[in-house]
Amino acid sequence: MARIAFVLGEDFEDSEFRKPYDRLRAAGHTVEVLGAKAGETVTGKQGKEHVRIEAAAADRDPASYDALVIPGGYSPDHLRIDQGVVAFVQEMVRAGKLIAAVCHGPQLLIEADAVRGKTITSWPSVRTDLRNAGATWVDREVVVDGKLITSRKPADLAAFTDAINANLGAARPQARAAH
Amino acid sequence: MARIAFVLGEDFEDSEFRKPYDRLRAAGHTVEVLGAKAGETVTGKQGKEHVRIEAAAADRDPASYDALVIPGGYSPDHLRIDQGVVAFVQEMVRAGKLIAAVCHGPQLLIEADAVRGKTITSWPSVRTDLRNAGATWVDREVVVDGKLITSRKPADLAAFTDAINANLGAARPQARAAH
Repeated sequence: MARIAFVLGEDFEDSEFRKPYDRLRAAGHTVEVLGAKAGETVTGKQGKEHVRIEAAAADRDPASYDALVIPGGYSPDHLRIDQGVVAFVQEMVRAGKLIAAVCHGPQLLIEADAVRGKTITSWPSVRTDLRNAGATWVDREVVVDGKLITSRKPADLAAFTDAINANLGAARPQARAAH
Repeated sequence: MARIAFVLGEDFEDSEFRKPYDRLRAAGHTVEVLGAKAGETVTGKQGKEHVRIEAAAADRDPASYDALVIPGGYSPDHLRIDQGVVAFVQEMVRAGKLIAAVCHGPQLLIEADAVRGKTITSWPSVRTDLRNAGATWVDREVVVDGKLITSRKPADLAAFTDAINANLGAARPQARAAH
């Protein structure tokens, strides 16, 4: 199965962490929560979820993960000013890993200059910033453009997580063949 | 004295509303709080300030104001998806009114395509979005570029409000001469 990094900061949208996290673990993947600072606890903007950051993104090797998931809410606004997180995202993109971002998650992809020429969706407040960063913005439940998966909001989470699961499988033919 | 519109939405940075609002009123200006929906009460992200929206921006004539102030926090992220607010901002910019934005406030100016060719500052998370929108971004307490005044954060509020006051005076020579 795959090894997946979530990146999380304060005021994340609670469900956009919890639902994909639980479902990807239930599917058998190894999931780790990275952020700006190891050991800190970040709280969702609904106040429902309190999550401990297992490691600073700066202290992890992007090569050891198969996929990156970026929940939304205000978390990406915090993470995009952390150089360690941005460098981790850039390296994951450069290495052709699967990248999945929901809601405001694509803000972090703008910071990593990873949306140019891509077709992408997001929470509507990020639309103009994505277009200015060179993306084609569309209003759809889930958009898959190469290794980039995006969704708009909590109501899209089932389709979002299904797309991650499906593309993880497709991305790792050797691993699947070995089972 | 001048007539000033503040635009405000949920999760604004409390001090970035309260300090300029109180000081501009104390200076004798007329200040009105506009937003997406008349009569709703919006709460600051620190939970300290609860502010009633006096009128929807869509129901007010931009021509009747001398200046627009855009506090930060997450308020601009909400306001930028309200067409009435965005149209109000665009019309204020088009009419050459004084525009002042702090922290995340410039997000609303990106939505109104009002930063192209301008020198501007902001909270650092908005820096890349401002550059992608055609602005020159600088890290300064307060930046005045023509009719556009910007600051970075709560610690800059005294300089921000002083700049608004100074430029309101400069913008209304007839009114000043009449006193």
